[in-house]
Amino acid sequence: MEIDLSKPILDRNERLAAENRAELDKHGVFVLDLMASPGAGKTSTILATIAALRDRYRIAVIEGDIASKVDAEKVKAHGIPAVQINTGGACHLESDMIKRALGALPLDELDLIIVENVGNLVCPTDFYLGENAKVMILSVPEGHDKPYKYPGIFQVSEAVILNKIDTMPYFDFDEEEFTSVVRSLNPKSPIFRIAATKGEGVDEWAEWLAARIEAVKAEADAT
Amino acid sequence: MEIDLSKPILDRNERLAAENRAELDKHGVFVLDLMASPGAGKTSTILATIAALRDRYRIAVIEGDIASKVDAEKVKAHGIPAVQINTGGACHLESDMIKRALGALPLDELDLIIVENVGNLVCPTDFYLGENAKVMILSVPEGHDKPYKYPGIFQVSEAVILNKIDTMPYFDFDEEEFTSVVRSLNPKSPIFRIAATKGEGVDEWAEWLAARIEAVKAEADAT
Repeated sequence: MEIDLSKPILDRNERLAAENRAELDKHGVFVLDLMASPGAGKTSTILATIAALRDRYRIAVIEGDIASKVDAEKVKAHGIPAVQINTGGACHLESDMIKRALGALPLDELDLIIVENVGNLVCPTDFYLGENAKVMILSVPEGHDKPYKYPGIFQVSEAVILNKIDTMPYFDFDEEEFTSVVRSLNPKSPIFRIAATKGEGVDEWAEWLAARIEAVKAEADAT
Repeated sequence: MEIDLSKPILDRNERLAAENRAELDKHGVFVLDLMASPGAGKTSTILATIAALRDRYRIAVIEGDIASKVDAEKVKAHGIPAVQINTGGACHLESDMIKRALGALPLDELDLIIVENVGNLVCPTDFYLGENAKVMILSVPEGHDKPYKYPGIFQVSEAVILNKIDTMPYFDFDEEEFTSVVRSLNPKSPIFRIAATKGEGVDEWAEWLAARIEAVKAEADAT
């Protein structure tokens, strides 16, 4: 009985996600769903990614949080359109929230929307929002054992960003073990080592993202 | 319609939590529900708390994780009974999981059970497990803005532990702002500044916990 309770929610979410996807395809907008724990550096990574790609792409951000609008304000301060979603308690974004946020953005004038999901290594994993790619960030202070404990998010991510690598000397982070466990969960996805607030390693990650955007564009042009 | 979906789950959870509470009262066992993000230092804080209180209290640990048993093994290595719960995806513990874990522990030979909830600043907030107190940990690398974004967990916590204070020089953590926002959300709960892996500040936190245990005992003796 209990297992079935989540099914209607997930079914409705999938249906609305497909509608989001169709709308985004119509306007040729790529959507990245960025997931991480609270404080792993999602907003800093978004700001660094914007700095790397704003000359090439027209970018907007959808910020998901339980409460507050501090992140959207940080993004807007850089002259980038941002929509804040407050989930009011829910631990992840759902398609209907994204649908409303898309309605508030000028889709015809955008190439890339970065969605900052709610800080959480669990809930966002199961919810397709209509995005082109899910990417996760783990930060060095969280510890190298996280892939053991939260395997799902490592498995659904098309790329893994290891952030705050500049703090490696202050933490007991076994990068070899981390890399090997991530590899066992997800053999294909690249791992990008960055220090978002310092700009370190951001170019490599941004180039990967740009290549993904171009691949989707090429596919759309071919059909 | 959707809002009602969570109600039967929460109702059942509350009923089983009350059963847990009755069973724990019968044996005079105090239960602490420890909540935090992934990597905030829950297990390190538990090990430091055990070191501080094991001469006074007979302690056991219930470890909650999505997957893996690494935390329970760390605790057992210190000669402390530990039960691992794998939620298999769920982002928080529920009363039925605790009920099964209690069945596996020698309650007559225990004074204190520390429950390490799943790494998450959202989901564990709403679920009463039959514990005597909920306490949360925030770690310095997560950032001082977390109370804005996750107000609920700061509000339900009877004490707030600020961990990894030894890394303060390497992060842009505004402790004054942090303290003031926590105070506005929760004027009563103490904030303990600790560095769990270094043992720093642990005594003050452990004494607070001991005082809470003694207060519950005194109340039980009086009735």
